[in-house]
Amino acid sequence: MKALGRQILVEYYHCNPEIINDVSEIESILLEATKRAKASIISHNFHKFSPHGVSGTIVIAESHIAIHTWPEYNYAAVDIFTCGETIDPWIIQEYVKDRFESKSISSMELKRGMFKVPEGEELLFKPKDAGKYSPHTN
Amino acid sequence: MKALGRQILVEYYHCNPEIINDVSEIESILLEATKRAKASIISHNFHKFSPHGVSGTIVIAESHIAIHTWPEYNYAAVDIFTCGETIDPWIIQEYVKDRFESKSISSMELKRGMFKVPEGEELLFKPKDAGKYSPHTN
Repeated sequence: MKALGRQILVEYYHCNPEIINDVSEIESILLEATKRAKASIISHNFHKFSPHGVSGTIVIAESHIAIHTWPEYNYAAVDIFTCGETIDPWIIQEYVKDRFESKSISSMELKRGMFKVPEGEELLFKPKDAGKYSPHTN
Repeated sequence: MKALGRQILVEYYHCNPEIINDVSEIESILLEATKRAKASIISHNFHKFSPHGVSGTIVIAESHIAIHTWPEYNYAAVDIFTCGETIDPWIIQEYVKDRFESKSISSMELKRGMFKVPEGEELLFKPKDAGKYSPHTN
């Protein structure tokens, strides 16, 4: 079984509430983290909510990054969905932790798009004969 | 323990590859699904990749929806992150399944932002005294 993508879901607790309520700061931190992970940014959107909280998404060539913050709980949720082997999502997790001044985090890694692939073969992103592989739900 | 948000991660297998390679069609399907679930759309971005595949995100007042498609595998990954009780993420899952003509799906539901809340109290989105609740990692 091989996966097309992997996804890291991070819970950042005990963050600095001023930082995670500042939409410009969050945008800057997430874009910098994405660059450090060597991901290719395609578009990004960040929004400030009233009275507090920020949401944002970054579409990258390798999938996406999303964030939602609850400054009133000193909490932020970040999703990092990647495909391919060229980018390292853990760089994003660590950089954001430092910049949010989060004192405790928990992370979960999931595989997305699982397919049965014959031994010795790879699950290519743009193969000509992908139809020969069966999804894991078969 | 109560959660600020919940997230549904859906794997759509055996989709119609023409539909999941059509960026306009995907955008239209996802926006319609979001409206049917009674979510409030704030912004959306969809992108077509070469030679195939589409990525997109919709920021909603209640969090976000994201999609990535691999038409060459007849596969699409959709994330539905919501908070509050007013929207029903399963409406999105079902509507997208029908429109993508997916013959098999698998879904996982996760809770995000877990906090210990005294019995009889609710985890409010915009409380004045949220600081009294402890995150589950304490």
